[in-house]
This record gives sequence, structure tokens and C-alpha cells, in this order.
Amino acid sequence: MEVVHIGFDIGGMSIKAGLVDKEGNILYKSTRPTPSGDKGISFIKYMRELIDELIAYSQDNNLKITAIGVAIPGIVDNKEGSLTYANNLDLEYPFQIKEKLKDYGFDFYMSNDANVACLAEQKFGAAKGKKDAILLTLGTGVGGGIVIDNKLYEGNEGKGAELGHFVLVVDGLPCTCGRKGCFEAYASATALLRLTKEIMMENKDSLMWEYCDNDINKVTGLTSFECSKKGDKAANLVVDTYVKYLGEGILNICNVFRPETVIIGGGISNQKDYFINKIVNYCEKYHYGYKNTPKVEIVAAKLTNDAGIIGAAHLLDF
Amino acid sequence: MEVVHIGFDIGGMSIKAGLVDKEGNILYKSTRPTPSGDKGISFIKYMRELIDELIAYSQDNNLKITAIGVAIPGIVDNKEGSLTYANNLDLEYPFQIKEKLKDYGFDFYMSNDANVACLAEQKFGAAKGKKDAILLTLGTGVGGGIVIDNKLYEGNEGKGAELGHFVLVVDGLPCTCGRKGCFEAYASATALLRLTKEIMMENKDSLMWEYCDNDINKVTGLTSFECSKKGDKAANLVVDTYVKYLGEGILNICNVFRPETVIIGGGISNQKDYFINKIVNYCEKYHYGYKNTPKVEIVAAKLTNDAGIIGAAHLLDF
Repeated sequence: MEVVHIGFDIGGMSIKAGLVDKEGNILYKSTRPTPSGDKGISFIKYMRELIDELIAYSQDNNLKITAIGVAIPGIVDNKEGSLTYANNLDLEYPFQIKEKLKDYGFDFYMSNDANVACLAEQKFGAAKGKKDAILLTLGTGVGGGIVIDNKLYEGNEGKGAELGHFVLVVDGLPCTCGRKGCFEAYASATALLRLTKEIMMENKDSLMWEYCDNDINKVTGLTSFECSKKGDKAANLVVDTYVKYLGEGILNICNVFRPETVIIGGGISNQKDYFINKIVNYCEKYHYGYKNTPKVEIVAAKLTNDAGIIGAAHLLDF
Repeated sequence: MEVVHIGFDIGGMSIKAGLVDKEGNILYKSTRPTPSGDKGISFIKYMRELIDELIAYSQDNNLKITAIGVAIPGIVDNKEGSLTYANNLDLEYPFQIKEKLKDYGFDFYMSNDANVACLAEQKFGAAKGKKDAILLTLGTGVGGGIVIDNKLYEGNEGKGAELGHFVLVVDGLPCTCGRKGCFEAYASATALLRLTKEIMMENKDSLMWEYCDNDINKVTGLTSFECSKKGDKAANLVVDTYVKYLGEGILNICNVFRPETVIIGGGISNQKDYFINKIVNYCEKYHYGYKNTPKVEIVAAKLTNDAGIIGAAHLLDF
């Protein structure tokens, strides 16, 4: 009987679950909406429904489930298998998950979603074949994942790898974490939007206004990049400023970890080559951080929607 | 026959070598001055003399040497066993070492001196019994060492763990590495001296002047700390500013690694409790970085002069 793991990818909108094999193939998947309002009762109920559905499929298809892995957007306690806190989930914290699924008898492991995405990319995606990889997801915040020597590095209780929360500018912009000047406050998609809007307000003749129908609320993470490609000066300023801070953060990661690969994920990475080349060009200016040392590849994430399920299923060894 | 390793601790002034056992005891040690001026010929000659001396001792005392470990103050290529660059050694780079000692037939491994010090502290010193530890040495620069899960983490080719070279202040003070605003430019002993002198020049009535006989060239890393203890306002400003930047850097390390222990080494750590307490107090202000997460102990380094020999000898497993 082929061994498979269950991988859960939990988000603010949906709970996705899949049966994944050793090679990272999803053999079956299903989903539920992420519930709210009942202190997590429906949350666990939906997880259990999904597990039951996957067990039924496994029995019909001669598959043996041995483990459950969970990717979750928040701060976990990986020893307890509980969620310490998650901004986007309506639960009471700490929220036990492992405990409430233990009657199934499967091995269980839970990790932060950026950690899981990094593991998936290192095993099956943009850093396949590399033993070290660092992933940055540029979204509402900046998520970080660290794989060292083919193994996820999560820090004590799984509370490390918070790569959005190293200070890049002492006394800089306020961060949601309470410190000032965190990398996240300069390199998240949120930061890019803020910067785009600021520079648009100072440059009323910028092409960016036309690009968003003169409605600043229609600004997206693509606005500055698209207009920069067309040579708009204000857009160039946005992109260059954003790339500078992102580049400084990546150089920090290079000096601290000297990994084989840095993977950039999140919506902005859809700009792929244009964006990645700008970052590489920035980093190449600095010998100590980047040149004259073993090459650090900077690449866009490759796996898209299924990275969470696949990575979660591979949190435990096959 | 008891197995021992040779540990070399190479510095700008002396080459020290010792025979070290599995428990970290130095059974015999000897030393040579660090030579200069002949492109490394004497350097290798002295290393070989020391090895021969240690072999003779081992033969007389029924010890079996199996490995050589080397701690060196510079950038290494740990795959080649060569020195890529060292500021304080008069050699030609890259400088092969492993190759020139291979006829002895011992296993060989070389690492940066801060890495080695971290390993020694984790195995036998301030972080004994902990599986994760980060070490910062505050000297001319800021050296960094990382032990994860009882294993030294050095990054690709041994060129990671450069914890002095993450930017803490984008566009900040120039760093010797070519970037601006590196942690080292704010947290090294050199930075403390610079800051002390700056603030003394602005405060001619400070007790610090008296403390250094009105000669600014007599300022040391202790000047501000000693005068701060006596309530001198200008000295307090030096100490608080220095502790702030050091604290921000340590919080960064906490968020990225969430290690069990951060060890502070270098001359300043002789201030022990007074200094360490100030750093802990600073860090405790920040929930996300420090509180509400597994405790990160911040402690002074414990091993002194012998850390290099002991750690180097333990670069290879017994």
C-alpha cells in the first residue's frame, strides 16, 4: 500500500486539504470555507470532515495515510501543535489543533505557512536540488522560511524565521509588531502600495494616475512596475526605492545565512524577470554581501496554489 | 589509546596549538609568534613545528591524534581548507593550509574564529547544555557564530554567519565591508570608542575626561561604562545609545533564529552583569521580539583564552 500524508493549507478564506505522495503529487484534494464566529468549533469540525473525506478516498484507492501536516498563517507552538496567534483567523488563542485530531492516530506537525512554502519550493519548486534555501513572501506582511541542509529551520517552538521582523532602519517606520523599522515595513506589498500612493500624491503628472483611472484606491502592487517599464519617472522612483530596501534585506540574509538560493514569493513576484533582475542588479553592487562569495541565486517562487498542501504534507518525513 | 585532536587558534600576534580531548580538556599546548613578511612560508613552518611538538607529546603519553582543527580570524573556504582573506595576517590570498598539512594524514577542518568560539561556548562554556546558540564577539569588528541543533552553521563555503554585516540602519554609518549601516558599525568595540569620543567632545564637563586623564587617546571600551555607573550623564548617553543599537541587533537575531541563548564575547563583556542586564532590559521592552516567545537567554561568554584551541579541536567529531 502506498504511503501518503494529509497536507492542510489553512488561509483566511478557505481550508484546503490534500492527499500527497512522497514525490509531491496531490492525489486528491478538497476544501471548506474558513469559518468564524463560534470559537473554533466549526474550524475543527471542517478539518475533521476533510480528514474523513480523505480517509474514505484512501481506502478506496489502496493508500495508507500516516501523517497530517498543517500550514497555518500565524505563530505556532510546534511542540504543542497549537496556534499561538493568527491575525486572520477568528479563533481563541492559544488554539489547540494537534490535541483535537489525535484520535485519528496519525503523526502530526504544524508550521507557519511561509516555512511550509519554503519547504515545498526547496523540495519540488524553485530551489529543487538545493540543500539550503530562504523564502520571502511579500504580501500583507513579509513571511520568511528557512531550509538548512534539507531541513526546515523554525527556531525554538517554531517561533523563529520571522524574516519580516529584523529591523533594517533603527527608529524607522512603525511595524505592526511594535518595533520600528522592520524589513516588513519596507518590503511588504503593503509597503509598496503605501510608497506608490505617497509618490503619486507628490507627482500628479505621473502615468500611474492614468494607469489607475485617477482613482488612488485602484493602485495595486503592479501599478508602479507597469508604469516603470514605460519609463515613468515617478514610477521608477517607487520601484528603485522599494528594490533598494528589499535588496538591503536580501543582502542581510546573504551575509547571515549565505544560502544557495533566496526565493521571492507573493503577488509581486508575478513580475518575475523584470522584478528579480532589478533585485539581482542591486545586490551585485555589493562585493562583500553578494559578489566574491559563493553565488546566491535569487529566484521567483515557482509553486503557486498547491505549495501549502504539498509542503504541509512533507513537514513529516515519508 | 585515548583519541585527541589538535586545535589551532591563530591570531594576529600568536599561533597557539593544543592537544584537546573529547571532554574539552587541553592536555598540552604550545605557541609561536605569528610571522609576517615571507608570504606565509614561516607561517606554515611554525604550524608544522607545533604539530611535530604535539605529536612528540602524544607519543610519549599514549595519545592518538586523529584530526586538526583551525580557528582563524578571517574569511575561510571550508571546502578547500583555505583562507580567502584575513585582515590581520600577512599572507597571500587565497592561502592554502589544509593542502600544506595533508602529509600528516589527519582529518582537517578550518573555520572562522567567531564560529569556533561559539562552538566552544555551546559545548563547554556559557551555553553548555543548550542545543542552539548564537555568539557575538564585540571587538574591532563584530564577529558572529551560529550553532543550530548542536551543529555549527557556517553557510555556503563557511562564508555565512557574518552577523556583524547585516544592515541595521539603511544609509547609515559606513562599514569596512563597503555597505552602509552594518550592525558592526554600531555595536563593535571600535564603534563604542568612536561614540564615547564624540560625546566627550560635546560634553567637556563629563567625568569621562577625568577618568582618562584628560587625554582622549586613553579612552577605552570601559570608560563610558565605569563613568555611567557613577551617574555621569554624558556617559549614560554613550551607554544607552550603544545598548540600543546592540539591543536592536540582538532582537533581530532573536526573531530570525529564536535561539536558546545569545552569548556576548569580547572585551566589553568583562562588564558582565552590568552590561548584560542593560541589554536584557532593552530587549524586554519588545514583546514580539523577546517576550511572549520562548525565552532567549543573553549571557556573557565564559571561556577566555582557551576557547579557540578547544573549539577548533572540536570542529571535527570525536
